[in-house]
Amino acid sequence: MVDVTGKPEVLREAVARGLIRLKSETLELIRTESVEKGDVSGVARVAGVLAAKNTSGLIPLCHPLPLTNAKVDLRVVEGVGVECVVTVRTRAQTGVEMEALVGVAVALLTVWDMVKQYEKDERGQYPSTVVEDVRVVSKVKGK
Amino acid sequence: MVDVTGKPEVLREAVARGLIRLKSETLELIRTESVEKGDVSGVARVAGVLAAKNTSGLIPLCHPLPLTNAKVDLRVVEGVGVECVVTVRTRAQTGVEMEALVGVAVALLTVWDMVKQYEKDERGQYPSTVVEDVRVVSKVKGK
Amino acid sequence: MVDVTGKPEVLREAVARGLIRLKSETLELIRTESVEKGDVSGVARVAGVLAAKNTSGLIPLCHPLPLTNAKVDLRVVEGVGVECVVTVRTRAQTGVEMEALVGVAVALLTVWDMVKQYEKDERGQYPSTVVEDVRVVSKVKGK
Amino acid sequence: MVDVTGKPEVLREAVARGLIRLKSETLELIRTESVEKGDVSGVARVAGVLAAKNTSGLIPLCHPLPLTNAKVDLRVVEGVGVECVVTVRTRAQTGVEMEALVGVAVALLTVWDMVKQYEKDERGQYPSTVVEDVRVVSKVKGK
Amino acid sequence: MVDVTGKPEVLREAVARGLIRLKSETLELIRTESVEKGDVSGVARVAGVLAAKNTSGLIPLCHPLPLTNAKVDLRVVEGVGVECVVTVRTRAQTGVEMEALVGVAVALLTVWDMVKQYEKDERGQYPSTVVEDVRVVSKVKGK
Amino acid sequence: MVDVTGKPEVLREAVARGLIRLKSETLELIRTESVEKGDVSGVARVAGVLAAKNTSGLIPLCHPLPLTNAKVDLRVVEGVGVECVVTVRTRAQTGVEMEALVGVAVALLTVWDMVKQYEKDERGQYPSTVVEDVRVVSKVKGK
Repeated sequence: MVDVTGKPEVLREAVARGLIRLKSETLELIRTESVEKGDVSGVARVAGVLAAKNTSGLIPLCHPLPLTNAKVDLRVVEGVGVECVVTVRTRAQTGVEMEALVGVAVALLTVWDMVKQYEKDERGQYPSTVVEDVRVVSKVKGK
Repeated sequence: MVDVTGKPEVLREAVARGLIRLKSETLELIRTESVEKGDVSGVARVAGVLAAKNTSGLIPLCHPLPLTNAKVDLRVVEGVGVECVVTVRTRAQTGVEMEALVGVAVALLTVWDMVKQYEKDERGQYPSTVVEDVRVVSKVKGK
Repeated sequence: MVDVTGKPEVLREAVARGLIRLKSETLELIRTESVEKGDVSGVARVAGVLAAKNTSGLIPLCHPLPLTNAKVDLRVVEGVGVECVVTVRTRAQTGVEMEALVGVAVALLTVWDMVKQYEKDERGQYPSTVVEDVRVVSKVKGK
Repeated sequence: MVDVTGKPEVLREAVARGLIRLKSETLELIRTESVEKGDVSGVARVAGVLAAKNTSGLIPLCHPLPLTNAKVDLRVVEGVGVECVVTVRTRAQTGVEMEALVGVAVALLTVWDMVKQYEKDERGQYPSTVVEDVRVVSKVKGK
Repeated sequence: MVDVTGKPEVLREAVARGLIRLKSETLELIRTESVEKGDVSGVARVAGVLAAKNTSGLIPLCHPLPLTNAKVDLRVVEGVGVECVVTVRTRAQTGVEMEALVGVAVALLTVWDMVKQYEKDERGQYPSTVVEDVRVVSKVKGK
Repeated sequence: MVDVTGKPEVLREAVARGLIRLKSETLELIRTESVEKGDVSGVARVAGVLAAKNTSGLIPLCHPLPLTNAKVDLRVVEGVGVECVVTVRTRAQTGVEMEALVGVAVALLTVWDMVKQYEKDERGQYPSTVVEDVRVVSKVKGK
């Protein structure tokens, strides 16, 4: 771990995003709330928040940073897939971009898990499902 | 959760992969083992295995499936980034693709965390770092 | 822990339930999906499933039992509160009633957390909010 | 999650309580320290403290709040059951009542787990065991 | 991880032990149950059981093995310290010695934590406290 | 738990160490990086850092202390074994020696797990493997 003991605590904010490509039929089921396993965005949102809070337990050299906010948004992008945007904030000695990225990754994989049955082909494979473009949109340090 | 109580336990294997795009300078540092935070692949490998084993704690509707194997491989793709391939196996009543995908995502984000300082631009942003093409390569059910 | 090493694995099912008493105004907000923190039942359901799966990490002498199903249902009881019913199943050497009870308790406390702002009085106290009647409805062993 | 980034850290204290109704015979075994699984109050106390510290991992929208104190007390209420009172304290930007409530719920369910064998009837059911009256006794904010 | 997918499940048992050297005055306080933080052996026993169950979350390449029994015994060794013996059992495809060792280590460190105040010298150091002789006493495979 | 609510946050540092005795043949395999399960020191280092960060989840009455640094060093001691030294730092209301000790214990047990196959005798026992001399080297409070 990088030693941040001597650094001052300042406001930290990070926004990350990513996308899961899904079949149009699957997107239609999400939009009409007809997915058998339940509310896709709702479950993914909770998974993303919990994962973001647990980042230092997942990414070995991350400092434990008690978040003061974590927001996970998901929306269907017509004909493409589901986009996830995660915003996290806290006052800390180091940045929170990993927390935002972990939230995005786990939320998108939760979407995958919720719609597995519709994305598999007849041989049980996922020819078109893919998580992509997971990136940091912005990072703010200090006021 | 899907009720799998009555299903028989059969061999389950899944292979997933993904990529993190990194600057050529960063890749050079990884290849020459000069990254200040330590052994990038080594730390990412451990993070990926631990995360795969903890999948049912991260993805809400995943069944707990005690894995009998988890293998995380990382390799530098010249001029592109670091590719991660995760293979998991067990005998279970349901598939293990989520375990493989979680391993890939956490391993790649651990790579990101290890090389943060080289990927940030002068304003602290990550203009070119991105995790992409996270997908299931293959899924096997039964012998 | 009780030594269950020599016991055969048989079907185990348990149903538990409990209730959180809430103000009528709060119940109205839940029913009309107007709670500011989000979808009360949805978040509580996810929390209940995750907690049920993690029972052996919470209750010290519980055996780790990989659940093959966990179902958390919540419903508004007009003028009274929110009732939660959790059903869990697996094949195991010992019963799963603790898993069902943990799911109920955590789901109901999650409901509390979601509606805190409406339940507090002007001095920040909770004069009427209470979790009660958490019990095992039924327990099945074997076919 | 509610954004508490801008709020000042002040002293927070919360006291919660709850009760588990048990048979008189079971209470007698607890009082005479004859329960086969071990020291009921001792194990429940540890479970309650650990759970209170882990609240933000259990209740999805709870902020992570490093507690500076957590105290779990249990006592036999003659002819009724076991009462649990949890007191938690810290300096934080938001209240700690959920931490106290989680401590109570997990401690009481641990009591249940410790005395399962005495509470079950001949058909393996729990006709009289019940957790009830889980509530916040008091909440303090600031000095 | 070693791939144990094809191995048969057989009975596994492991016994591990270790010792924490403590001052005679501290041992006297433990024996007379006068330690201010509470019941030393009781708390250590719970910590040891929980840690043993969580071994695959702590030791990266350990397989998740649902234990069917875990027993943690502690006893004061006159003039020497506290000895801890942990016995774990399950049916599994690989051995459980790591589970027993993790139980011993965490139980002994919990003893340390419980008696910190009596072991520290006037400069806040621990000149004589030490955990030692943590070893596997026996390992059984199959009946 | 000891109530530390009113105590000031000051710099806290602790260094702990311990040793695992291993066969000379095993040490040779570690030194030549020929251990089949992988990079012994690398995996143990990650395990030690993660465990140190999770101390309050393992040792029941430890306060949660977000560490600002954790460093795990391992080195082969010719003809003896592998020594582990862990240094942790943070600003906190109470000391961090338990965090350092937990890091040492889990790192050394991870070494054990990595070299199990070379340490076992023909009957599957570990006649010479032992973790010993786990102690606090120094503890610093304030500047």
